[in-house]
Amino acid sequence: MRGRFTPFVVGVGLLGLALLNLVFALYALLIGDPTLGFVWTVAFALLVGAPLTVIGRQDARPARREALIGVSLLWLSLTFVGAVPYVVNGGMGWIDAFFESSSGFTATGATALNVFEGFAPSMFMYRAVSQWLGGVGIILLFIAVLPQLAIAGRQLFFAELPGPTEEKLTPRLSQTASAVLFIYLSLTLLCTLAYRGAGMGWFDALAHTFTTVSAAGFSPYANSFEGFDAPVEWVAIVFMFFAGISFALYQRLLQGRTWFFWHDVELRAYVAIIAAVSALVTLGLLELYEPLEAVRYATFQVLSILTTTGYASADFAAWPERTQALLVMLMFVGGSAGSAAGGVKIVRWLMVGQSTVREIRRTLHPRVVMPIYLGRVTIPEEVMRAVSAFVALFFGTVGFSTLVLAWLGADLVTAFTASVACLGNVGPGLAGVGPMSDFSHLHPVSRVLLSLMMIAGRLELLTMLVIFDRRFWILPRRRPRGRATHSW
Amino acid sequence: MRGRFTPFVVGVGLLGLALLNLVFALYALLIGDPTLGFVWTVAFALLVGAPLTVIGRQDARPARREALIGVSLLWLSLTFVGAVPYVVNGGMGWIDAFFESSSGFTATGATALNVFEGFAPSMFMYRAVSQWLGGVGIILLFIAVLPQLAIAGRQLFFAELPGPTEEKLTPRLSQTASAVLFIYLSLTLLCTLAYRGAGMGWFDALAHTFTTVSAAGFSPYANSFEGFDAPVEWVAIVFMFFAGISFALYQRLLQGRTWFFWHDVELRAYVAIIAAVSALVTLGLLELYEPLEAVRYATFQVLSILTTTGYASADFAAWPERTQALLVMLMFVGGSAGSAAGGVKIVRWLMVGQSTVREIRRTLHPRVVMPIYLGRVTIPEEVMRAVSAFVALFFGTVGFSTLVLAWLGADLVTAFTASVACLGNVGPGLAGVGPMSDFSHLHPVSRVLLSLMMIAGRLELLTMLVIFDRRFWILPRRRPRGRATHSW
Ligand SMILES: [K+]
Ligand SMILES: [K+]
Repeated sequence: MRGRFTPFVVGVGLLGLALLNLVFALYALLIGDPTLGFVWTVAFALLVGAPLTVIGRQDARPARREALIGVSLLWLSLTFVGAVPYVVNGGMGWIDAFFESSSGFTATGATALNVFEGFAPSMFMYRAVSQWLGGVGIILLFIAVLPQLAIAGRQLFFAELPGPTEEKLTPRLSQTASAVLFIYLSLTLLCTLAYRGAGMGWFDALAHTFTTVSAAGFSPYANSFEGFDAPVEWVAIVFMFFAGISFALYQRLLQGRTWFFWHDVELRAYVAIIAAVSALVTLGLLELYEPLEAVRYATFQVLSILTTTGYASADFAAWPERTQALLVMLMFVGGSAGSAAGGVKIVRWLMVGQSTVREIRRTLHPRVVMPIYLGRVTIPEEVMRAVSAFVALFFGTVGFSTLVLAWLGADLVTAFTASVACLGNVGPGLAGVGPMSDFSHLHPVSRVLLSLMMIAGRLELLTMLVIFDRRFWILPRRRPRGRATHSW
Repeated sequence: MRGRFTPFVVGVGLLGLALLNLVFALYALLIGDPTLGFVWTVAFALLVGAPLTVIGRQDARPARREALIGVSLLWLSLTFVGAVPYVVNGGMGWIDAFFESSSGFTATGATALNVFEGFAPSMFMYRAVSQWLGGVGIILLFIAVLPQLAIAGRQLFFAELPGPTEEKLTPRLSQTASAVLFIYLSLTLLCTLAYRGAGMGWFDALAHTFTTVSAAGFSPYANSFEGFDAPVEWVAIVFMFFAGISFALYQRLLQGRTWFFWHDVELRAYVAIIAAVSALVTLGLLELYEPLEAVRYATFQVLSILTTTGYASADFAAWPERTQALLVMLMFVGGSAGSAAGGVKIVRWLMVGQSTVREIRRTLHPRVVMPIYLGRVTIPEEVMRAVSAFVALFFGTVGFSTLVLAWLGADLVTAFTASVACLGNVGPGLAGVGPMSDFSHLHPVSRVLLSLMMIAGRLELLTMLVIFDRRFWILPRRRPRGRATHSW
């Protein structure tokens, strides 16, 4: 069955995109918005997707490499074909459309949209729904699908899940996947009602719910949450908090295993970080706002950045530098593994921290034996190595991208924060790409690079693993006969 | 003999400082400069140093922990007592004096000196000599002394040296130490003559030689090398290049083992980085300078930052952002291990790079066995772990310091680059701490933090290891009897 997985997932993904655009074509027709872009996308996605599903096999059991290629190509093709409405209906250039579409399906929330006036409501909703789908897609991928492949130790972040029994992937909507969908839909429903109850209209409530529960951050308004009142902001705060928690933990809650929920080390660190940094940012904002206002603005922005949602209830790029420095640090932290949040993820920092402390001890007491724990789970050394490599690759990519963006004309803060914000799927950065600005003024090459980085970051750099692998560039047919075929 | 090592090294260090200040008192007397500060320092250093040498024992054989404490306290006490002349002769405040003295003995080159006019020539020379001594001190420490303790794998960077045979340190001026001194003095002589030949006066030639061969960067001029002609700049380029090479490699050259010199992986990477980044910076400067000028300015600044010397032949903080981004990256790279250069060091990046590539391979092919090589030497896994921890600690410290500096009023670029520039012993950063600015305008707490970071960075964070160790805070006497004493 080798080689049949990639066409299958890409094909099914495109058929799903066709269906989505069909719904949006009808919706646009109903409210008198432009429909042509959605129609074109239906046609194109069908034309490419249908043959692929025929070639592919649902029961293909891909090995790691093919699974990674399949998933990477799925996100790339959704992004690419899904960009058509932005061009046809939205009047955007192809590069901006690709950027916006990447930002959608990766739930990043960085925008290349310069003028919000005249952009059709159906397009704003399309943008929001693409994030909602991208968000749940990534949760399913990392909680239900990839752990079966035990890639770079990611199975360990969800210690309760069954370990990898074999190296082949059986794609199926497992019990875990059903639980994830149930929780996601419940959060969506609750969030919509809460936004509505707090004073939003139905359109706004829905458009923001789609991008809140997915920690994604698109808003139909150029100034994001700045125009909304305090109750709406508090609803966003609460649901951003929920969106940043691992869905594997929610599953335990559903199973009635509340002890595991409340004693999860990542959840505790998540709460501690929010409390500590919000307090500091509040202090830093007392020169600008009344105390209670400062608490609200601080908590909103801290949650928005930590969960990598990317909303803004104030132009934090114009805040005191001390608070900006804290927010930039948070961009590197990221939310919980197993949520829709991006970034390095808290659990990895816990592991890096523990391993660093251990090496310090070992320097002075070389015979010290100190296994690394995550709650009650011992982390094997090979997982620790994979985490170190991930962090190195994350920082290396940010460094490389900063150099490229600066070379192409961005100032240092813009280049650096745009890189972190896109690779970490945060959305807005500081300076030229602050929450009240957009990415359209960056060099075209920069925008393409950042789009690819959103996808790479969303798939936790697994896309890059494939590209860096020598054999990725060798056609399977070319392998000389007689060489042992082993499963990779 | 336990407990006798620290007083011995600190005592001897202070006696050396007394001798140095005696020489400077006479020199100042001769040229009519203020002498009081030097005299006070002689008195104070003698008063504290002499009793300590009596308490200490030359033949003390310290274990790792005591060796690290001794070395850390040596640098701290030299810095502290050596700050007196800056206060008394230079009219600086205590915090600025401590900053300047740290920057001296750690060969960092960041300055808190705001007004260069009126600062006595003898003080400029004192500042330069403190860097010259600090530079050779660090080379001796890392090449001749610490490898015997095998701390955090640092012995491996000098694979030709004898490995640790036992865990105790025998402080002696070994063959290696003599070779280092011979090379250092030769470079000093050659550099002085070259500067003089290129047109500098004897005072300038000497003052700059002391801070060139030590990759240190103090200059008696507020605008560093900006006022000198092209030949002088080329001399600096050549000798900064020499200063950034490992002295263990020079030793091989002296031993006639030229093959090892030319095939050293770190040296090759060093040359490659200089060539590549200088070419890019040259390109980025073509809008400002004539092509040949651009090459000179680019090469000068690239070498100055990569070797962490910190001279400036132009105000690179006012250069195009694309070149600034490249220079900031270089601050993180650093020079070769076993030279007076600071930063993370090239050899560590080579190891991190290799280990990251290996983990990428392993993700797809879990059964791949790939030892990490450095030239012909295989790097053991525990050394790789220590290197990862070092890099994590380095970045963590930069992050923490950036937050503190920004909190205390610095803008983002100033806070970030000041932190890297001090921890990496580079000297100047960008924006508020650019090469034509100084650090005196930073918050007092920031200046103290940066001073301590210079010392921590100079000792490759080993100081921090000691502080982080729980037992550092427990007095030896308090240890309950009957507990087994083991050597740590
Ligand atoms: K986001
Ligand atoms: K320096």
